[in-house]
Amino acid sequence: MTPDPLTDLSARVVAGDVRAIARAISLVEDDGPAGRDLIRAIYPRTGRAFLVGITGAPGTGKSTLVDRLIAEIRSSGLKVGVIAVDPTSPFSGGAVLGDRVRMNAHAGDTGVFIRSMATRGHLGGLARATSDAALVLDAAGCDIVIIETVGVGQDEVDIVSAADISIVLLVPGAGDDLQAIKAGVMEIGDIFVVNKADREGADRVVQGVASNLSLKAYDASEWKPPIVKTEATTGAGVDTLWKDVGRFREWAATHRPEHRRQRYRARLRDVLATSFLQHVDRVLPAGEFDRLVEAVSERTRDPYSVVQDLMNRMLHPESRIPDHERR
Amino acid sequence: MTPDPLTDLSARVVAGDVRAIARAISLVEDDGPAGRDLIRAIYPRTGRAFLVGITGAPGTGKSTLVDRLIAEIRSSGLKVGVIAVDPTSPFSGGAVLGDRVRMNAHAGDTGVFIRSMATRGHLGGLARATSDAALVLDAAGCDIVIIETVGVGQDEVDIVSAADISIVLLVPGAGDDLQAIKAGVMEIGDIFVVNKADREGADRVVQGVASNLSLKAYDASEWKPPIVKTEATTGAGVDTLWKDVGRFREWAATHRPEHRRQRYRARLRDVLATSFLQHVDRVLPAGEFDRLVEAVSERTRDPYSVVQDLMNRMLHPESRIPDHERR
Repeated sequence: MTPDPLTDLSARVVAGDVRAIARAISLVEDDGPAGRDLIRAIYPRTGRAFLVGITGAPGTGKSTLVDRLIAEIRSSGLKVGVIAVDPTSPFSGGAVLGDRVRMNAHAGDTGVFIRSMATRGHLGGLARATSDAALVLDAAGCDIVIIETVGVGQDEVDIVSAADISIVLLVPGAGDDLQAIKAGVMEIGDIFVVNKADREGADRVVQGVASNLSLKAYDASEWKPPIVKTEATTGAGVDTLWKDVGRFREWAATHRPEHRRQRYRARLRDVLATSFLQHVDRVLPAGEFDRLVEAVSERTRDPYSVVQDLMNRMLHPESRIPDHERR
Repeated sequence: MTPDPLTDLSARVVAGDVRAIARAISLVEDDGPAGRDLIRAIYPRTGRAFLVGITGAPGTGKSTLVDRLIAEIRSSGLKVGVIAVDPTSPFSGGAVLGDRVRMNAHAGDTGVFIRSMATRGHLGGLARATSDAALVLDAAGCDIVIIETVGVGQDEVDIVSAADISIVLLVPGAGDDLQAIKAGVMEIGDIFVVNKADREGADRVVQGVASNLSLKAYDASEWKPPIVKTEATTGAGVDTLWKDVGRFREWAATHRPEHRRQRYRARLRDVLATSFLQHVDRVLPAGEFDRLVEAVSERTRDPYSVVQDLMNRMLHPESRIPDHERR
């Protein structure tokens, strides 16, 4: 008896088969029933990996730093997976090439798996796709899963919030340092890294972060984010960074046991909302949603009353009264 | 007979009463039933304003440029409203102060209304709150509504996508210009502005944008984003920028009639998803969602099967079978 393809694939993922992992991540990227079934199959084998989120603007040397981190992690014998969320664009297309270069750097090391995910074409589901890809790497036996993203917008905050620790990368000479620091990144950093620390202005960035952190009063039980100087090109400081990640992990285990649960909660709500919209698309008569959009566009209906009607129809399908008799 | 408070408020908004507008925007920020009722009441009076979205990293001189634009718009007699989406943080708190300074610059001009909205505490609903605030300004008779945001993340893309035109602000000397340009902003710009054009490197930024744009083949019917050099501190170039906005508006009216409808569609889906989650919270027995989150966290359930069960229970409430008998 041959096993069904899904059982076979999930067994091969759990066994750490690189091609199966790549195939599985493609499935969850597609966001179809096969990807969801795969997650259901592997889910009991997940929950062991420690998720490390790293975000920083373009040009901060993120990829180089992650490569150094991989070497550091591998030196202690741990298996590591990397999900690089790359904003590919019709104008660039650098993701695939960069991926190949990095794969080569760790070629032959079966303890490293690197995968790029595009930020486009996911219609807001990128955080979900990233989380599911991390589950695949988790099930495949990765001890550490690194999720790297570009930029510090809400999407990046969402993705990095799905990790156990968030590392924010800064760099000297990137314009108005202090303003950039103020603009929303202070809240998400568990560790701040000032990379390219040999450059002029590195100490000013460190001081900027430090003085911003000093505005908040940390009591003894709270985690005060350390600021680590690194030079990714030489590897200087990367060992310190990795030790700080370990310190944070120990701290979080005792002081922040609720953190993972909050993430699972956010995730469930996200999947639930998406499911409902898919259901609406399935059960509404063809063309009806378009007509409602048209009515809102033409101001003959307002969006909130349309939503109220749709909710009534979805939740009480037995009393499906034609829309125009209802009001 | 005194009118009910909501009818009174919406009438005063439509009459352009500044205090009523401020009160109405606060209501839609709160995201309660009162805000939704207000939008329903004013909705038939909306749809006239042209929405201008402006995004740029911190330090690009966005506020100064918007102030110049306001002056330019006012010189042609149009009424203008501004929604400044400011990432306030426990570390900064500059939004309110900046707001007051800007209000003073246009003090006494009843044709200008400026309002800041914080990016925090909106739990993903910022794009909704911004859209509703724009509807208030629209109903109040603003001919132009400017929505300015900081950064180029997904949240900013969502907010700026709710506008009729998207302007991307760049500035010389902000680190690796070309990389920043590649990282997702090329797609959303209908016009690119290189501000602080008197600075060294301005032409390099212009060339960088131009060479990126040249990678895409624009046919005659397509809009090829112009690149405008400005000096917001002196006002140089702002008249050219405003003329390009006008050119785009004319082009979009004939070449992109579907654009607004697509925005209304995205908006409806967003409101619908939020409504459903609120319904789930209302009807689930107390503590049940927490127990499901716990089960997912403990790996005794997987997220996709939990969502499937919840969907079944919400959509077929008559057949509410206890969860454990269902599987």
